[in-house]
Amino acid sequence: MSKTRVEAFSDGVIAIIITIMVLELRVPHGTDLDALKPLVPILLTYLLSFVYVGIYWNNHHHMLHMTSRISGMILWANLHLLFWLSLVPFVTGWMGENHFAPLPTAVYGMVLLGAGLAYTILQATIISDQGERSALAAAVGADLKGKTSALLYASAIPLAFVSEWISDAIYVFVAILWFIPDRRIESRLKGE
Amino acid sequence: MSKTRVEAFSDGVIAIIITIMVLELRVPHGTDLDALKPLVPILLTYLLSFVYVGIYWNNHHHMLHMTSRISGMILWANLHLLFWLSLVPFVTGWMGENHFAPLPTAVYGMVLLGAGLAYTILQATIISDQGERSALAAAVGADLKGKTSALLYASAIPLAFVSEWISDAIYVFVAILWFIPDRRIESRLKGE
Amino acid sequence: MSKTRVEAFSDGVIAIIITIMVLELRVPHGTDLDALKPLVPILLTYLLSFVYVGIYWNNHHHMLHMTSRISGMILWANLHLLFWLSLVPFVTGWMGENHFAPLPTAVYGMVLLGAGLAYTILQATIISDQGERSALAAAVGADLKGKTSALLYASAIPLAFVSEWISDAIYVFVAILWFIPDRRIESRLKGE
Amino acid sequence: MSKTRVEAFSDGVIAIIITIMVLELRVPHGTDLDALKPLVPILLTYLLSFVYVGIYWNNHHHMLHMTSRISGMILWANLHLLFWLSLVPFVTGWMGENHFAPLPTAVYGMVLLGAGLAYTILQATIISDQGERSALAAAVGADLKGKTSALLYASAIPLAFVSEWISDAIYVFVAILWFIPDRRIESRLKGE
Repeated sequence: MSKTRVEAFSDGVIAIIITIMVLELRVPHGTDLDALKPLVPILLTYLLSFVYVGIYWNNHHHMLHMTSRISGMILWANLHLLFWLSLVPFVTGWMGENHFAPLPTAVYGMVLLGAGLAYTILQATIISDQGERSALAAAVGADLKGKTSALLYASAIPLAFVSEWISDAIYVFVAILWFIPDRRIESRLKGE
Repeated sequence: MSKTRVEAFSDGVIAIIITIMVLELRVPHGTDLDALKPLVPILLTYLLSFVYVGIYWNNHHHMLHMTSRISGMILWANLHLLFWLSLVPFVTGWMGENHFAPLPTAVYGMVLLGAGLAYTILQATIISDQGERSALAAAVGADLKGKTSALLYASAIPLAFVSEWISDAIYVFVAILWFIPDRRIESRLKGE
Repeated sequence: MSKTRVEAFSDGVIAIIITIMVLELRVPHGTDLDALKPLVPILLTYLLSFVYVGIYWNNHHHMLHMTSRISGMILWANLHLLFWLSLVPFVTGWMGENHFAPLPTAVYGMVLLGAGLAYTILQATIISDQGERSALAAAVGADLKGKTSALLYASAIPLAFVSEWISDAIYVFVAILWFIPDRRIESRLKGE
Repeated sequence: MSKTRVEAFSDGVIAIIITIMVLELRVPHGTDLDALKPLVPILLTYLLSFVYVGIYWNNHHHMLHMTSRISGMILWANLHLLFWLSLVPFVTGWMGENHFAPLPTAVYGMVLLGAGLAYTILQATIISDQGERSALAAAVGADLKGKTSALLYASAIPLAFVSEWISDAIYVFVAILWFIPDRRIESRLKGE
């Protein structure tokens, strides 16, 4: 079974997700600077979510590059990841419009955690299909970065009720952590 | 005539359908748990429709994989399927926002029935184009699963006026039935 | 210059156009049949426009199939066609929500005429690039069908102010005329 | 690392950007010419932005055509460009709905400047990856056109507060300047 359509479909869904988020930036009625002010937190959240979805796209790109074969299980694990990513525009809008209030900030973390776990499940499904000796298994290794991120998201959820700024700082920190495409895979590809 | 563009176009349309459904999850104005409550039935309907559209994408993927040649008739049968699928976001929103009221629940079943019949027509069009001895014809066989689903949708429509929960249970049951990609085709592909 | 990306980009734009039209079918607040009634003309217009966009996609598919080379002029002629097609959701919504009132019906015809002319320009651009002896030039011939459609659209625009039903009948008639993918090209492909 | 998915993803995002702009053309409630009048500036801005996004797509198409290899840096430089382009629908709607008022006109210029700089950064990233002797480096040369455009955008931002028409004229002028796909690259391709 070819992976071309899985890539094409995922590209389509991720492209739409990353683009419809901008629809939350509603055109203001005024034409002065005051009209733009309420949009600043929305723009910042949009930027954060854009980077997150971009990271997922980059890593997905790398992971499927190392995948030789698609099974029915992989198709569903992939759709599961896309489901969580499709909730990102909603939580982005909710957090942005409410100036990073505690509950929206916590729910944002839940969706990031869900997407992170879905990515890990997809990765494990591909590795279990390709064997522990596959290039992907070697490249992922103990997946410390994935586990650290999940822990950080999980701690950001309750911490949003202490102070939303702690959680926001965690989200920004994890984004920076992943900003660079997975070097483990990239260095492996170069060594090929 | 190549099938690449038919796949690409279908991927595009299905990717948009699966993603714009999430726009019905409108950002609430409040920031407490009460603000999220009315979204629960919308989220559940979204999840159900996401799984349905995912099933259609998976099966479409498998079916076109076994299709060697595209004719004008197949193009239109494919567009006919996409038309019914494009109505899914509308009925999803209507059913979700009205807490599974009888009429929206029945109309949801009509759209599922329409999509199911359109899929059967597309399948029959491809088989008639490729011949009864084609791999797809052998894989589909008597298509018991397709016929059962159509019967179940057709019964769910009037039953929504008895109790919408019966219909909802039928929709969930059919989704589970199809959850796994068409093993008939998949096992055939492995035997290749 | 490869035509893959031109096809992919056009597929993307047309897939989005055909799908966002359904957003005009707004979820009604009521849950009885009365709530659905105002949606009937919108659904009918959606169906008509879906068929039109489907026809354009099919013919575009056939035309590019016979195109070997993409020039800068062809890129812009293609974008020009996509521009007119992108106005279809707007005029579809306007005509549907106003129960086929005269002005929206006339403007609908203007957009169809614009798209038709843009298609003819794209076709002429490709033929002029490939030479009068190319397969496409032979397949298109005198393009009677294209010219007839343009004349019919042009007459439907003023006729909408006499009676909108005449114009609507013309739109349905032209759609039927084009429903079948361009046999001239298809028969030629079979003869290859 | 293959460039197919980078092209496919960029095509998807740009296709969505160019198409969702038309959603700002909201269906009017009236059915006479007066109902269309307020849409005229929105339609004009839409046309301008459509041409701009079309120019970016064309040039992106040409540039990636000359790119042999994709690195992690290039992926992010590409996403950075897509981020700026994704803001185009927002500023298009804001400028169009406010009849080209000074601040929206200036912000429109800022987004064009941002997209222009992002394009230059992407170009420089690709050239630095491929070496100064690559075909792309030769084709781009001193990039006078890119530098001129950036200067013109930068001057249009403050000039919007003198008279918005000056800025609008600059935007139209730069669009005309770029209307033709990059001849430097195209002529080079022909010479291959």
